[in-house]
Parts: sequence; C-alpha cells; structure tokens
Amino acid sequence: MATGTLSVLFCRFFLFCLLKSSIYKGQRFSILFQQPSDCGVDKFFDTSSLSCVKCGPNQIRGKSGTICVCQTGFRVVSSNGPAITCQQCPAGAKSGVTRDGYGCITCPSGLSEDGTCQCPAGSVLVERALNGSLLEEAVCQPCNSTEPAYTAPDSAGIRCARCHDSFINTSLSCTCGATQVSVGGLCFPPNNLPTSVASNIIYNQLALPVQSVWFSRYLHSSALSCLVFSNLTACQALGNMCVMNMHSLSSTNNDACGLYNNVFRATAALGAAQSISYWRVNLPWLFYGDQPGLASRALRTEALPAGFTFKGAQKNTNINFIAAVYNARGDFLKWETIGKGNLQLCPDSARRLGAAYTFGMSYKQSCILSLSEMLTAFPEPLFYDIFMDVGQGSSNRGRNLLSVPVQNLNLQFNEQFVNQGSNMNNWFLTRRIFLVDALSGREGSLTSLPKVIRVATSIKISFQLVPSTLKGEVYPPLISVSYSDILVSNVNTQTVPVSFSMEYEMDQSEALVKTDIAVGVLGGISVLYALLKTASWKRRIASPIIDLTTVLKFLLFYAGDLANVFFIITMGTGIYWLIFYKAQQFVSVLLPLPKQEEKFITYVACAFALKAIQFLHKLVHQLSVDIFLIDWERPRGKSTRTLEGTGDPKNMPSPVSIWRTYFVANEWNEIQTIRKINPTFQVAAVLFFLEVVGFANLALRDPSSDLNREPEAYYPPWSLILRYGVATTVWLVIGFLQMIFFTVFYERFVEDKIRQFVDLCSISNISVLLFSHRCFGYYIHGRSVHGHADTNMEEMNINLRREGENLCGQRGLLPNTDTQTFQVAITNRLRQQYDRILEPLSRRNGPMRLVDASANPFDQSVKAYHTMNRFLGSVIDHAHRELDYIVKDKLILERLAGMEFMEPNDKSIFYNDESHSFSDVLYYGNEATLLIFDTLFFCIVDLSSQSFILAAVLTYMQQLIFQLIRNIFGRRNLATKTLVDKRFLI
Amino acid sequence: MATGTLSVLFCRFFLFCLLKSSIYKGQRFSILFQQPSDCGVDKFFDTSSLSCVKCGPNQIRGKSGTICVCQTGFRVVSSNGPAITCQQCPAGAKSGVTRDGYGCITCPSGLSEDGTCQCPAGSVLVERALNGSLLEEAVCQPCNSTEPAYTAPDSAGIRCARCHDSFINTSLSCTCGATQVSVGGLCFPPNNLPTSVASNIIYNQLALPVQSVWFSRYLHSSALSCLVFSNLTACQALGNMCVMNMHSLSSTNNDACGLYNNVFRATAALGAAQSISYWRVNLPWLFYGDQPGLASRALRTEALPAGFTFKGAQKNTNINFIAAVYNARGDFLKWETIGKGNLQLCPDSARRLGAAYTFGMSYKQSCILSLSEMLTAFPEPLFYDIFMDVGQGSSNRGRNLLSVPVQNLNLQFNEQFVNQGSNMNNWFLTRRIFLVDALSGREGSLTSLPKVIRVATSIKISFQLVPSTLKGEVYPPLISVSYSDILVSNVNTQTVPVSFSMEYEMDQSEALVKTDIAVGVLGGISVLYALLKTASWKRRIASPIIDLTTVLKFLLFYAGDLANVFFIITMGTGIYWLIFYKAQQFVSVLLPLPKQEEKFITYVACAFALKAIQFLHKLVHQLSVDIFLIDWERPRGKSTRTLEGTGDPKNMPSPVSIWRTYFVANEWNEIQTIRKINPTFQVAAVLFFLEVVGFANLALRDPSSDLNREPEAYYPPWSLILRYGVATTVWLVIGFLQMIFFTVFYERFVEDKIRQFVDLCSISNISVLLFSHRCFGYYIHGRSVHGHADTNMEEMNINLRREGENLCGQRGLLPNTDTQTFQVAITNRLRQQYDRILEPLSRRNGPMRLVDASANPFDQSVKAYHTMNRFLGSVIDHAHRELDYIVKDKLILERLAGMEFMEPNDKSIFYNDESHSFSDVLYYGNEATLLIFDTLFFCIVDLSSQSFILAAVLTYMQQLIFQLIRNIFGRRNLATKTLVDKRFLI
Repeated sequence: MATGTLSVLFCRFFLFCLLKSSIYKGQRFSILFQQPSDCGVDKFFDTSSLSCVKCGPNQIRGKSGTICVCQTGFRVVSSNGPAITCQQCPAGAKSGVTRDGYGCITCPSGLSEDGTCQCPAGSVLVERALNGSLLEEAVCQPCNSTEPAYTAPDSAGIRCARCHDSFINTSLSCTCGATQVSVGGLCFPPNNLPTSVASNIIYNQLALPVQSVWFSRYLHSSALSCLVFSNLTACQALGNMCVMNMHSLSSTNNDACGLYNNVFRATAALGAAQSISYWRVNLPWLFYGDQPGLASRALRTEALPAGFTFKGAQKNTNINFIAAVYNARGDFLKWETIGKGNLQLCPDSARRLGAAYTFGMSYKQSCILSLSEMLTAFPEPLFYDIFMDVGQGSSNRGRNLLSVPVQNLNLQFNEQFVNQGSNMNNWFLTRRIFLVDALSGREGSLTSLPKVIRVATSIKISFQLVPSTLKGEVYPPLISVSYSDILVSNVNTQTVPVSFSMEYEMDQSEALVKTDIAVGVLGGISVLYALLKTASWKRRIASPIIDLTTVLKFLLFYAGDLANVFFIITMGTGIYWLIFYKAQQFVSVLLPLPKQEEKFITYVACAFALKAIQFLHKLVHQLSVDIFLIDWERPRGKSTRTLEGTGDPKNMPSPVSIWRTYFVANEWNEIQTIRKINPTFQVAAVLFFLEVVGFANLALRDPSSDLNREPEAYYPPWSLILRYGVATTVWLVIGFLQMIFFTVFYERFVEDKIRQFVDLCSISNISVLLFSHRCFGYYIHGRSVHGHADTNMEEMNINLRREGENLCGQRGLLPNTDTQTFQVAITNRLRQQYDRILEPLSRRNGPMRLVDASANPFDQSVKAYHTMNRFLGSVIDHAHRELDYIVKDKLILERLAGMEFMEPNDKSIFYNDESHSFSDVLYYGNEATLLIFDTLFFCIVDLSSQSFILAAVLTYMQQLIFQLIRNIFGRRNLATKTLVDKRFLI
Repeated sequence: MATGTLSVLFCRFFLFCLLKSSIYKGQRFSILFQQPSDCGVDKFFDTSSLSCVKCGPNQIRGKSGTICVCQTGFRVVSSNGPAITCQQCPAGAKSGVTRDGYGCITCPSGLSEDGTCQCPAGSVLVERALNGSLLEEAVCQPCNSTEPAYTAPDSAGIRCARCHDSFINTSLSCTCGATQVSVGGLCFPPNNLPTSVASNIIYNQLALPVQSVWFSRYLHSSALSCLVFSNLTACQALGNMCVMNMHSLSSTNNDACGLYNNVFRATAALGAAQSISYWRVNLPWLFYGDQPGLASRALRTEALPAGFTFKGAQKNTNINFIAAVYNARGDFLKWETIGKGNLQLCPDSARRLGAAYTFGMSYKQSCILSLSEMLTAFPEPLFYDIFMDVGQGSSNRGRNLLSVPVQNLNLQFNEQFVNQGSNMNNWFLTRRIFLVDALSGREGSLTSLPKVIRVATSIKISFQLVPSTLKGEVYPPLISVSYSDILVSNVNTQTVPVSFSMEYEMDQSEALVKTDIAVGVLGGISVLYALLKTASWKRRIASPIIDLTTVLKFLLFYAGDLANVFFIITMGTGIYWLIFYKAQQFVSVLLPLPKQEEKFITYVACAFALKAIQFLHKLVHQLSVDIFLIDWERPRGKSTRTLEGTGDPKNMPSPVSIWRTYFVANEWNEIQTIRKINPTFQVAAVLFFLEVVGFANLALRDPSSDLNREPEAYYPPWSLILRYGVATTVWLVIGFLQMIFFTVFYERFVEDKIRQFVDLCSISNISVLLFSHRCFGYYIHGRSVHGHADTNMEEMNINLRREGENLCGQRGLLPNTDTQTFQVAITNRLRQQYDRILEPLSRRNGPMRLVDASANPFDQSVKAYHTMNRFLGSVIDHAHRELDYIVKDKLILERLAGMEFMEPNDKSIFYNDESHSFSDVLYYGNEATLLIFDTLFFCIVDLSSQSFILAAVLTYMQQLIFQLIRNIFGRRNLATKTLVDKRFLI
C-alpha cells in the first residue's frame, strides 16, 4: 500500500492532519520530569500529562497528590472530572462539613482537624436520617454498651456495633472492669502471666536495645489472647515474636520466648498436636525438645523413608521442601513449595535457582543485596515452618511431611550461643525461620523506617548419608541459619551479603583409614623394592661398601617408588570417586567436602615432588653414561699422501673413513628424546577430550554425568578429587592408546627408530658399547656381515641386496645367532683397563699443572680413540684371555628383579637382550616415568589454577624445556665420550 | 557448659522433661500433608496443628477454611478462641440471623441465602436502633433519592449514602432518566459516541473472538466518562484498552481505539499536553502521529543531547529509562526506573539484568516461562509509558525525559500489519506497552481463568549511531515489541518463550563500500603479480608456449595472491573493529550486527580456501623437486679385493665411501620441515594468550576491554569479526616474535639448521644441485677446501682445526670468495643432458615392455649415479665448453620481482645467493605461507565452532598431518632423485 493512501486513511481517524503536520517538523518529544511529590501544596499531579497542574480556588492537593480537594471548611459544590468547585460553609465554631464532603452541617460538639464533626468517645456521629435526608444539625448518639445490646462505636465512628468478644466474655459489658486486665484494646480476666512484658529487643551483634513498637503493641495482648482465649492467630503471633527474638531463652520469663513457655506450661493439659511432644495444641511448634543429645537423635537415628537415586528409571534426585507460611500477625497464608527462590534471597534465573534442590548437587549462591531493595521486598517478615515432602507412605493416607529441624546459630540459651559449637549434643534444634525482619526493629511507629533489620544472611541445608547405605538413604536434613543485625543508617547505600548453600556429606573416616592403610602397606613394599634396587646398583658399580652415597642412592630410589605409591593411591581415589559417585544408581557415596580434600591434595603434591626427584635423577644419570663406538672397519689399501711436516709423499694404509662413526653418533644423538608416545599429541588430545568433548564436566559436584552442559545451567563448584580423577584417567588412557598404536602399528609398519639404529650399526660395521654403571652396560653388536662397510654405493647396494636375499651370515655376536643387543656385566679388571685408556682425556679437564703441556689434546684424544677401538675390538674378539667374557641368557627372576645374580669375577658376562633394553639410557626406555611425571605436572598445575588449558600449555612447555636440556647435555656427553666432534651431531 | 547442666536449665522452661523424655525415643517428626481445601465441609483447617479438625455441632467451615461458622439459621451464642457455640433461631419464614451473627431477628421481607434479612432495591436494612439496641423486627428503609438528599443504599446495603456524581450531574436525582444513557452503573447525558461498542477482542494469531468481560464492563463507561466528565482515570483506562487491542485501527469506530479516536477528535478544543501535538489534554498519549515518513523523522532527525563515552573520566555508558506505570483501571501508580528486570520477563541475577542497560553491550536474554507463573506474577497488566532520562538540559529546570517510540509489530491498520515491513516510512509509531495481559481475555467473570493471554514475547530496544559522529551521538532508541496470543488450555503445563534484547547499530554501508574498493584494487594488483609470477615460471621452465598448464599455473598463483588480499582485508577489518570499537573513548563506531557479518565470513572462507590451494600447490611442488648430491671425492689409493665372479684378487682404486653422501642426504631429509618458528609452541602460546590470559574476552560484544571477566557477570554474545581480529592479531604477533627470536637469537647462538647443512656440505666435500623448475634451481657448493674429506678422525680433526685457524683457502665456488650458495638458471642444453643421464631410471617406472629385462635396476641406478656425478662435477669445473656458466649478482629488481631478466641461452648463470634461498623448496623458506595458512585454519575452525581450544587442537593436528605427509613423500622423492637408499634417510 502506498504511503499516501495510508496517510489519507489515517487522517480519517485523526481529524486535523494538515493542521498539525506543519507543526510537527523539529518537534521534540521530550518533557520535564515531575513527580507527585514535586508539586507544591496548591498543585496536583495530572496523571494524564504527567505534570503539575494548579488546583482551583479554595482547593488544596489531596493526599495521593493526583487530585485536588476542598480546603478545610469548604464543601464540594460540583465535580466534573478533575475540576471541582468548592464553597465555604457558614462561619461559626459549630459549622462543619459532612463526611462525604458535599454538605454543610452544624456539629453538636466541636470539629475535628479536617473540618468534620467530632463526637465524644462512646458516641457515634449521625449526619443523615435513616432514609438518607441530611439533618440540619448532626447528632452524637451514645452507644448502649450493656446487655443485651453490647455495642460500641465502630472503627469509623458512625454506627453502634457489637463490641469485641473479649469484653463481653470477661466483663459482660463493653467496658473492662478494674479487676480485669485491659491490654491492646482487649479485656482479659486476671491470670498468671507477668503483668509487665519486655518489649525491647536487644540486638546482640550491635549491643543495642530497641524499643520495638510491634512487641510493645502486640506481645502482651497476643500472649494473653493465646492463653486466655486460645486464639490461634494470637498464639502464632506470639510464637513469631519468639522467633524474631532468635528463640533465645533466658532467666527473665517476660520476653517473647519466656511468655511462650509460660503459655506452653500452662496449657500442658491440652496435650500434643500431631503426636509430637513439643507441639502443643493451639500453639506453634518452635522447639524440638530440651534434652542433651536430642539433636543427634533427631538427626542421626532414622533415615528418610525413600532413598535417592541418581540414574535409571527410578531416578529420584528431587528434594521437595514445603513450608507453611505465616505472616507476622499469625495468619496462616499458604502451603508454599520451596524452590523458586523462596529461601534464596539472591535473584537468579529460575533454572539456576531450581538447581539447588537436586540431590547431590553441591550448591552455593551468594550476593550482596541493597538494603532498600530488601525493605521493598520484605516490608514485613514471613515465617516458614519447613517440611520435607517424603511422598506417599506405605499407608495410602496421603503425602507425609517430615519436619526439618533448624539450627539457629544465633540462639542463646542463658546468654550462651549453644548452637555454634561443633558438638551436636549441645545443640537445641528449633523450627520456624524468617528471611528478613524489618518489623520488630521499628521504633516510634509501625510505618516508620526500622532502626535495625535482621536478615538470615546465611542459610545452609545439609544432608548426611546413612553410613554404608546402598539405597541412597539419608538422615533428615538440617537447616543452619545465621542471622545478622543491621543498623539502618542509609538505606540507599547500605548492603548486605547473603548466601544460601546446600551440602551433602557422608562419613569419610572409613575411606581415610583405608587410604592410610594403603599408604602404609605400599610404602613398606616400596622400601623393600628400593633396597633391591640399591643392592642391584651396588653390584653394578662393583662397590661393596655402604657409604653415604649408597644411602643417598637408596633415598633417590625410594623417592621414585614412593611417588608411584602416592600416584597409585591418589589416582585410585580419584577414579573411585569418579566411578562410585558419578556412576552410581542408588546413592551410596557422596563426595568429600572441599575441606576434606586437603589430605588428598597433600598426597598429590607428594607424588609430584617425589616423581620430579626421580625424573631429575634419571635425567642426570642418562646425561652421564659412558659410550664408545667401536669401528670394525680395517684399511683396505694404501694411499699415497703427503705427510705433514716432512713434505715427502709416502705410501700409507688408506685411512678408514670416520663418516660411518659420524653417522652412527649422529643417529644416536637423534634418538635421545624419542618416546614411545608423541608427547605433544598427548597434551593436545587430553585437552581435546577434557575441554572440547567435555570430560571436564564430570568433575562438577553434581550427580549428572552429562558431558555437555548448557551455558545457562547452574555450574556447581569443582571437586578437586574428581578433576584429578578425570585428568589422570584421560591422560593415562590416551597414553596407553598411543603406546599401543605406536608399538602395534607405527613401529611395525612405519618406522621404529630403535630398531633402525641397531640395523644401522650393523650396516655401518660399528658396535656400540654403553656403560650405564661402572661395571654394567649395554652392547650393540654392529660388526658387518660383509666384513667391510666403508665403500661406495655400488658395493653398499650389493651388500644390502645380499643380506636381503639371505646370502650372507647372520648378524649376531655368536655365530649363527641374530642377537645383536646385550646387557653386559663386566669385570672390574676390564673396567680398569677401560678407564686407563681414557685417563689422558679425563686428565685434560683436571688442574693445569698436571697436563703435559707438550701433548696436543687433539692428538691425545685421537690416540685414545684408536687405542680404545683396538682394545675393545680385541676384547669382543676374545683376544684377551684375562678379559674374556661369556654370553648367556638372563634368568626370568633376574629380569623381574632388575639385577644380576652372578657376579662377573673372572669373566665378563654378556646377557642376551632381545628387548633393546639399552633404551633405558634414553627417554624411550623410561616412558612410564615420563608419562607419570607429565600427568602429575598437568594435574598439579590444574589443581592450583583449576584451568586445564593453562595446565596443558605449561605441560607442553615443560616437555619442551626438559627435551631441550636432555638434547643439549646429551649431545655434549656424547661428544665427550665418543670423541666425535660436536659439529657432526646435528 | 556440661550438657547435664544445660538440660536442667532447659527443664526450668519446659515443665515435664522426665515425663516426655521416655516418649521421645523413636518418635517420628512427620505429619500428614493436609491443606484447607482438603478438609470436608464439616472440618476446618487448624492453622496451629496444620491438620483438619472437626467443627462443633451445627457448624460448617467458614469461607477461608480456617474457622468454623454457624450453619444458616443459627446464631453464635458464645465464642472462645476457635470454639464457638451455635443456637438455632426461632423457626419461621421471617426469622433471620443478624448481620453480626450473634442475634436472631424478624425480617420484614424475606431472607437471603446466608440466613440474614434481605431488603428490596433502593432500601437499606436496619437491625439496630441508633444507640445500638437490637430491634425486635428489622426495618427496610427506602433511601431518599431526590434533591437535596441524593441518596441511595451503600454497597453493603445498610446505610443511605450520597449517590454517584454522574447521576446527580446528569439527572439531578439518583436515577437515570429515559433520555439518558445508563452504562456500567453510571449515568450519562446523550452524546456522540456510538451507542453500542465492540467488546469482543479478536485475537488474530488464534483467529478467535473472545467476549471480554473487562471490555464489556468498562469500555463503554470509560469512553463516556472520559468524554463527558473528563475523568482522567477513565481516559487512561480507555487508552489502556486501546493498547490491549494492539493500537489497531480499523474502519469500525466502536472498538477501543475507535472510541479513543472519537474522544480524541471530540476534545480537539482542549489542545495538546506538553506541547506534543498528539498528546491531548486529559487523554493518554498513544500515537506518534499519522503522517507517512513520520517514523523516520522521529527516529533519525535529531540526536540525543548527550553522547556516550566508553572510557575515561567522562565514561558514560548508562542508559536510563524511566516509565510512568498505570494499572488497567487507569490509575497512575508510580514513576519506575527501568532496569531491575521490569521489561525483562526472564528472572536472572540483578547484575546480569542490569547489564542490559549498558550502552554498547549487545544484550539478549531469552527463556521459557510457565503460564502459571506468569499468571501469578501478572494477574492484571501494567502499562508502561517509557521515557529516556537524558539528564539536565541546558536550562536548569530539571531532568528532561525523552519519549521512546514503540514499534508494535502486531499493530494493524485497516487489517494490515504495517509495522512488520522494513520500510520505516510505513511504520506507525506508538507509545505505551504492557508485558502480560491476562485480563482482557477473561470471559464470564473477572476472577475466572483467562481464555487467552497476550504476552510481549519479544522486546527489542535498538539504538542507531548518528553517521560519522565522533562524540557518541545516537538517535532516539526504538522499542520493537511483538506480542503473542496464547490460548489457555492447561495452565500448569503450557509455556511461553520470551526474549528481551538490546541492539546497537550504525550505518555500515560506507565500511562495506570501502571494503569492496579495497578488494577491487588489491585484487587487480594481485592479477598483475600473478601474471609476473607466471611469466617468471614460464622462463624458469624454459617454455615459451602459453598452454592450458600455463593458465592453470596462473590460476594457482592467482589463488595464492588473492588469498593474501582476502587475508589482508579481513585481518584489517578485524583489527579495525578491534581498535576502533574497543579502544574508542567517545563512541564513534558500533559493531556490525551478526547478520551484517556474513560478507566478512565469506571473505575469510575465500581467504582460507585460496590459501589452502596455494599451500597444497607449494607442497606438491616441493615434493617433486630434482636434487642431486655431487661427490667431489676421488679415490686416494688402491685396495686389494676379490672381484665378484672371478674370485681373483686384484688391485683396484680403493672405493670412495658413500657414507658422506648418506650423511648429507640424511641431513637434507631432516631439514625438510624445519620452520622459522616452532609451530606447536605457536599454537600453545596462542591458546595461552587467548584463553588463559583472556584476550578472547576482547571479542565480546560490549564496550569493556577488560581481559578478565568475573564468572557471574553477563556474557554478551561473541562478535565473529572481533574473534577473528583478536585471533589473527595474537597469532601473527606471536609468530613475528618467534621469528625474531629464532633469527636474532636462536639461529645465531644455539643452532641454525640451514647453515649447518651448508657447512656440512663443505666439510663432507659434497655439493648439492637442486632443480625447483626445469631450468632453474639452486646450487650449494660443497667442495672441500682440503681436497679430501673421506678420511679418518685424525685427518678430519686436523682439517677442521686448519680451517678454524684460517690456514686454508676459502669455501666459495669462485676463488677467494665465500659464497657457497647460488641460484642457478641453466641452459636448455644442460637440462637435456641432465635428463638424458637420468633417462634409464625414469624408464624404470615406465611400462614393463620398455624395460631392458636383462639390465639390473640397481646397477642402472649406480651407473646413472656415477655418470651424473662425473658430469655435474665437470660442468661445475668448467670442463664442458658448450655447457659453461657464469657467476654474477642478481639485480635488486630481479630479487624483488622474483624472476630473472636475462635468459640463459648460451651459458648457464649462477647468481650469488647469500640468503640461502634454496630453502624455498623446504618448509623453511615458505614461513609466510605456512603461518598464514595456519592462522586461517585456526580462525576458520574457531569461527565455525567458536571454540579456541578446538581450533588449537585441530590446528596442531593439521600441522602434524601435513608435516608427516611432507616428510614421508619428501623422503621418497629424495631417495628417488639422489639414488640414496631410503633406509639411510632416518
């Protein structure tokens, strides 16, 4: 539709389009802000134009501020909408305005402030005849207060109406006699209650007594009405005042709770309501009882009839609280389902608020509320008698409600805060709570601002699991309430911090004892294992003396084993909670509370610290192994070359090329930090599963085991134990999967660096002798089956082909065997010989004066290299009878224990070793230690920062740094020990 | 205090400790759930014991259910608390109970249902004399309705009181005359309004008319009161009914808005309130006007007086809305500050709710509310006239309020939804909204459940920035409201989805145009650059013909350049918004809305796709380079060896060891995927800065530039542009820092793999010749300065020492130069020679029948190797006159353009190349491409998943996979081309 047409149509409704359209341009749609209180006494607030408008003559602003009314002494002549006309009534002391404001009338006995007639007490004002005709002069008619009329003026003072029952019952008239008690507009017969009551409230936290209007007006009359007339509402009001007084009992018996107890005692004959002994008929139920140990009996004797279930068809995690709500006056308002923020003062989305009442969901909300908001929301307190809906009982009578006891932390018993101690037997459990009391603190009038308000700043509901239940049975919950007294000074700026929480506990002592036992037993075993390792080490370094180094070494081994013990126990604990808490159907365990997790954290820290010691120890050990590359190649011809210095050409054996040695050393250098897994992939995969797939959500303190949570849902706090459990599980599972992938697939079908190295040794005709200890080490037999390897491409290809076609001998050290790798335990003699050859080199690093200044260090090292090459070659070739060796298999027990039973006294022993255990001096052979160290590093960072991302990044950095250190120092060690120039190790 | 003492003390208050303590054991604190409605008619709900208790004889339950009252016809004899006694009044048709229930009385004219006396209309019931004495027989007294009494029975029917002004004004009596209009208990003079009004509401979304009680009861009377008596409340009530009718205007003029317009027209003489033309005095302001284009003038003409500021001392991001609130009856309730969830129906924490009114914070909340909650919270609608508080004006008169226009999407103008179009000129702006209307949909009675409720399910407040403002000026905001009609079927299960959002827009067309221009210009340049590259490529492959391959190659080059263009533009856009939006003090730009980001996302996708093409192209190219290792070593002696086959020992030149070649090839294999940065560290660092340090928070659609947000704060949605901007910036900055670290520090002081390789060539006496194109490549001159390298450790050490002490020649190709690396442009002839030598090898991969079956492939390759070695060696040594070469420097322009100006026709040309540009065939020389590809990959994953963690993990995986591919195929290519066995490339 064209805009033009629309405009024309629109104009049919609004008459004067053209008239106004010119005005429109540049029009500002803004007004000045005015509110009713801004208008003066002669202006009213026009609710149509939202501005102050002047009243007509003889008029003033009405009470609401939005209308005008006639001044005192003026009557309304006519009214037309907001505009009225006023006219003065005849002058004179007796001339008043009728109550409806439209007429003038002569008053019999004076005027009230607003210009209407006033009658004496006990009389009513009569302005009109029964048929409605206005009288000339108003009449003050006294009411007949005696039997049978029993009347008194009604509240408006215009009719005689039957007076209150209490007068009629007590005095058989509408006046209270001298012997009777007249309190709060009621009349009571003489009774046992104290005649004066304590209507001031003492706020303990402020040490400030407040003369409460509410108490002074209603306390005495409520107590009397309750006692004398059994008025239910009055009884409730009395009880509420006792609650506002914090249920506190003192030796004075004329305060709210004292009066309650007076009435309680005096009405003993009425018996108990609902068969609950401290619930007196007609009275509210405030106290659980008076016996020591009653609290523990009420809280720990009997479980709730229905258990909680986390999963499955019978899933039951709903906690149904229901409360009987009373107002301060004692009226029962309604049954209210607790859930949508009734007890939670902090506003939040319905979903998050509702999450509080899920069993097992650790819930805590806290916020800071402004006092003004609180006063608006809670002008008067509401009182809650809280029950838990435990569903249909066995009988089909209806839903059963279990009363929930309250631990009021502010309750004083004879000036003592008995509920604040931890001994449950001293507690006095109560009922009925309120959230905000801005009523009792009012001084002067009930409409004034309160001087003090009392707020339930901390509400905690805790559940305790029945020990060793398998059906999710819990004891009745306990509500702990702590109130704060706030002195009101500036409503708009003052704030109150409030909190609400739900806690679920179980008795953890059994679990702790079990953990301690496990630590003890495994710790003992690890001592034995560490001793075994130390013994093996002593034998391998061929030293029989037990000295300080031995003790130190023992401690180092022990550190590693103890780290494993702690790791196993913490991981076991983590997985235990993860499985038993998250996967349980019927609730049988509940998570430890944060304060109960401290011991666990200590264990993790110990595990990490000890593992770090073990890791560093291994690292340092690996960086100091002795290694030598034995070149089996012998010169094959003579070459003509010019000798240095002489300048004469001479026929010499053509040199054996060093490049094969370089190649092997270079490769050895490269496999230093090869691992059985890809450590960076490990970190990335763990991060992926924890944060992207969402396994991290399993560590939330709630019963759900969903991996994906919606962002709007309530997020309970983390459980550190579960975080650790999830992280270690994911880490180790991925680690194992990687290891399986690499061993089963990758190393078999793509490449196996360790096997490649052994093959390379064989092809390059170079053997590797490694000493990880003084007299223990590894030997890789690399003698070429072709005799020579230092040759050209043609011959190399032929050699490779021949070997591929099995046309040549086998590579093993012993004839007709394939075993190329050995563990060697050498005799002391052999080692001494080895050291002697290397002596000139080690002396190089000694003090200056010992060095033979003339000797060239390069020459020395080359000389040492050749000597060593020849010496070791001849040893392997059995050329030295006194340094001979035998080859044998290792016993299974020897393999398991990691030590050699036979001492190499006469002959060195070469143990067949198919499993390439020489990789123990590389990263490759220590995957378990590395993996656990990485895991613990990751977890420690996460536990302290609670961020898996930070943990992942730092773990990656840690791996990078240690790898760099291992590479740099490993290369330096390799260069020193093999005498290969560092420049070739690239 | 001992528990015993406590117990004794407690017993002082509760009398019978011993009595009850035995009872306590095993006591269950549970009760049966009963509520007032559960008790039968003869039981009342005892609010003290929370149970149903039987009433006394002759009693029934009272209305509230919590007390008992006497049956009809019974009077109360005595009352004591909850217990009353009832007595039957004398039998008889005229015997009734007094209104107070305590007496029996004879009725003059029958009984009402509850057993009290009933009087005819116009009469009042008199039970007591003026002084309160009860009469024997009640009297029905007619009221005097004529002047001057003007009385009628009051609402209770017990007194004659002055009747309503409308009767007196209209008919001068308390009865409405025949010529007058009696509507809704009021009396009006004859007037122009339609005599019948449409009181049914037609819910368009349900196509269901509802006979509204509210409308039928109050519409006509409100309109009449407003028109005739100028009753302000009635006028507001009439306006509210028009609002409840969606402000809809149709040709029938007797619906709510029609009546409003009738009154509006009829009161033209009263003039405008607050100088706003469509705000009639006494009437509510509902419409902005009737002109086409008025909406755009109201919304886009004048800016708000005060601008918004994001930062600094004058920070001003508060949006202050204030509303005049009316109830359905038309009473003005209060001025209410909009902020604490008045317009936001979804509950949430105060902090998150308040975040909505921060300028620049893109806010959206939505939730699903249950109908029952909504009905409890909004039994009757409230009406809001919304203003924006723009603070003190220049004049010091007070705060100015700017009216905020409403775009009611449900408004119908002549059955057309004019506000739903996008053309602002057709819109009809209105005022006054409500949130939930459960009133107008009630049929039958006002207390019944509504049949239909209307909910403002979507409220959107949008601000538009003044174009090219520098002071944060904005146009007046616009509230768009969309209402939904919900047919009430089951209150407890029905739900309503509601949402509230704040949007901030600016005119993006200029930015879009600028982007388009940039794309055009840079795209053009990239065409030229791609042409240049194609030309260079043509020259390098020495092919003059323009064929399909050339076109394809051009497209591939163009893809790369275009990818850069898109990357530069998107990154520029991202950084532009990041800086200009987040860092601005006075607001001058606002973020594009999500729907405006689509073009940007397309650009990023293009950039990524094109970059991926470029990357794959480079990868494939690198995997097919030609490489040959030239061994300069010559045999130095004779060796005695047994020739195969003959078995005769023979003196032959001792073979040159191939191990140096193996070593060099192995090293070349290892530097394939070396990069100028550490790519994994890059990913980890980016993740760290984005997620742990919190740079990701910069991408939130809010004005804050804090890196750390509290978890309880409101999180606005992400801006994809900002996410991209932050991610690319962090990525590239870290990349550059890494590059600087590696070039300036690491490669200089720790290790430089590229230089090490060049050195290795020199030490091992091996040159490397690489052909990246058919006639173009790189040459690394590695001829040993010592003549021989294939020697033992002693000689190697001596050589190295001599070179270290500068005792030998320089390594360069030309005498006395150091330049070892060259770019080579070779002649076609040389290339043909090269190919000819390799021919037998390439034929190996050809069809079977072409292969010389007798020739051994191993032999062939060795022969080819030797031939090639000799041939290339002699070419480098200038031994072939016809294949000679010259060495020269490259021109600066040549370097810049990446092509050679001189064609190698006669002689090949060796260009000095100090910068190791042979790394162009490795990852190392293509860092820019790789870095940008990784960046784009990261961003693309992030943009689609909005998870930096997932992006980081996938980017790492991508790097890993491509590195693996590059290594495996690179190794295969190397083995094929250098004829080195793959087993040595480890």
